[in-house]
Amino acid sequence: MSFRHVAIIGLGLLGGSIGLAVKEHLPGVTTTGYDADPKVRERARQRGLAGTIADDPADAVRGADLVILCVPVGAMEAAASAIAPGLKPGAVVSDVGSSKISVSESLARALPEHVIIPAHPVAGTEQSGPDAGFASLFHHRWCIITPPEGAPPAKVKSLKAFWRGLGSTVEIMDADHHDRVLAVTSHIPHLIAYTIVGTASDLEEVTRSEVIKYSAGGFRDFTRIAASDPVMWRDVFLNNRDAVLDMLDRFLTDLAMMREAIKAGDGEMMFDQFSKTRAIRRRIIEHGQDDARPDFGRHDHD
Amino acid sequence: MSFRHVAIIGLGLLGGSIGLAVKEHLPGVTTTGYDADPKVRERARQRGLAGTIADDPADAVRGADLVILCVPVGAMEAAASAIAPGLKPGAVVSDVGSSKISVSESLARALPEHVIIPAHPVAGTEQSGPDAGFASLFHHRWCIITPPEGAPPAKVKSLKAFWRGLGSTVEIMDADHHDRVLAVTSHIPHLIAYTIVGTASDLEEVTRSEVIKYSAGGFRDFTRIAASDPVMWRDVFLNNRDAVLDMLDRFLTDLAMMREAIKAGDGEMMFDQFSKTRAIRRRIIEHGQDDARPDFGRHDHD
Ligand SMILES: NC(=O)c1ccc[n+]([C@@H]2O[C@H](COP(=O)([O-])OP(=O)(O)OC[C@H]3O[C@@H](n4cnc5c(N)ncnc54)[C@H](OP(=O)(O)O)[C@@H]3O)[C@@H](O)[C@H]2O)c1
Ligand SMILES: NC(=O)c1ccc[n+]([C@@H]2O[C@H](COP(=O)([O-])OP(=O)(O)OC[C@H]3O[C@@H](n4cnc5c(N)ncnc54)[C@H](OP(=O)(O)O)[C@@H]3O)[C@@H](O)[C@H]2O)c1
Repeated sequence: MSFRHVAIIGLGLLGGSIGLAVKEHLPGVTTTGYDADPKVRERARQRGLAGTIADDPADAVRGADLVILCVPVGAMEAAASAIAPGLKPGAVVSDVGSSKISVSESLARALPEHVIIPAHPVAGTEQSGPDAGFASLFHHRWCIITPPEGAPPAKVKSLKAFWRGLGSTVEIMDADHHDRVLAVTSHIPHLIAYTIVGTASDLEEVTRSEVIKYSAGGFRDFTRIAASDPVMWRDVFLNNRDAVLDMLDRFLTDLAMMREAIKAGDGEMMFDQFSKTRAIRRRIIEHGQDDARPDFGRHDHD
Repeated sequence: MSFRHVAIIGLGLLGGSIGLAVKEHLPGVTTTGYDADPKVRERARQRGLAGTIADDPADAVRGADLVILCVPVGAMEAAASAIAPGLKPGAVVSDVGSSKISVSESLARALPEHVIIPAHPVAGTEQSGPDAGFASLFHHRWCIITPPEGAPPAKVKSLKAFWRGLGSTVEIMDADHHDRVLAVTSHIPHLIAYTIVGTASDLEEVTRSEVIKYSAGGFRDFTRIAASDPVMWRDVFLNNRDAVLDMLDRFLTDLAMMREAIKAGDGEMMFDQFSKTRAIRRRIIEHGQDDARPDFGRHDHD
């Protein structure tokens, strides 16, 4: 069975991209959409982010066999409760939230009678809102599905097929493992970037305009990440607290060792550490999750 | 007076780019070059990184009125001593090192009789070696010149004109201030990136291949920076220790506050911090030190 009618709740970067990707890649599939913000709904209609944009969440999901919640993690429970009156029995409820344990729990609380299969497409940009989405966002990116125990295998299979249809490669994982993996590959990098950009902008003896002028030395790559949506990221840290704190403490331990090496002038330790990290970069490029063109100097962007 | 013969010592990313940029932008100027590594000299001849590549450092600088040392910061003193026998009186000795106090001191020690005017073009990529250079590396980038007290104004002016000729905008700064500014905009970002990539590759419960697969969530931007040359960066941290430790401690203080906010579930504090950093990003884009195309999702790279 494949999904014939997909409802999208939340029409920002993720929701809008799903709508555009379905239109491009799965032409037989109907889409409907809803967003809590009337201005977003208006813009979504102009851009055609879904076939029909409803003004009421229950109307948006009526008749859908797959509903995807594309709202900040902290808004998942409210969004799920709001669609309950319109949901058809047997519909699959999924989402795209960046943390999975807490979202699974929220959705199960809000919709105890329904089939819930959470997912997380590991694809994004630092932009948000109804103008940010594009149809190829999921191409060559991973989508992690975290089916709770007892999820109907046929429906998990359909959800896998849906994401493959949008260009993703699908991986099944349990929610707990997902949250630990993403803490290190995404949440901690964002936390660090937000923090160092904050530190740099509060210095007295180095002005903000100096920080901006000389950002090509490495800092600007952090500012890109630190320009991500504050609501989305606040919610991620509130909802993946344990894994984030655990990974943060490991990072702090390693950073304290680096600090000691610098203090002691231990060049050998630094050289060894800095050599190791090159290998990881090479493998990311081999796996097609980045390309080798230097962005730092951007001679390809001129 | 403008320089008519420029000698480049060290023919990797920076030295090679200077050679190619002079050929493209300053066609009347002669270049000669030298690198300690015979394989680099051979490759430099093939690519034409300088008009003549000498096999001896003193020969490379004979007759030059500007010599630019493009070697790792820790090799500056040895490189300066090696050119001494060939240096003509009145020649300006400059460099491109990423830290300036220690380089100024090394060069003054090695060449007490010569005019030394250190500089640092804030432009680079994570690549190194004789194949990495390209003529446009310095376009629209800043070059910071840190003349010591008593440096002849006419020669400082000539060096400014030289870097403008290669496409840079020049700023004059004292070495101490340079080292503090670059600690925050470049050195600390590299230190953090090297550290988190190291932390991620040593985890037991999250495999390396998972870290690589799901790197599109933010981590891959750190791996790019952490792929930079280990010798160059070891030398930077050994040579800009005080400013780096000072900035690192401020970052650690801010990160500890973030940690507390996550632990306490203080969403308001996080939201405020994460909102502030967006403004900095906007200004970097306005100043042309980055562009707005999202690299994180790379839909423009497909
Ligand atoms: N951005 C990324 O890189 C990325 C990557 C993977 C996964 N994710 C996840 O995807 C989800 C959406 O992120 P996004 O980047 O698409 O955010 P976004 O562009 O800000 O879009 C979210 C939209 O949902 C709306 N909304 C909020 N509460 C709602 C509710 N109760 N009912 C209906 N609509 C509601 C928001 O309206 P208001 O603005 O008026 O609140 C906004 O228009 C988040 O859970 C995030 O963790 C994001
Ligand atoms: N990369 C950047 O992003 C960047 C940006 C701004 C400034 N800088 C600064 O520019 C300088 C050069 O960096 P780079 O990226 O161009 O490095 P690179 O590509 O590794 O080139 C440096 C070259 O210098 C050679 N060398 C080492 N010691 C020497 C000596 N005593 N005499 C002659 N040649 C010697 C090296 O040979 P071996 O490999 O055999 O040692 C190598 O070929 C450093 O001081 C760095 O701090 C770098």
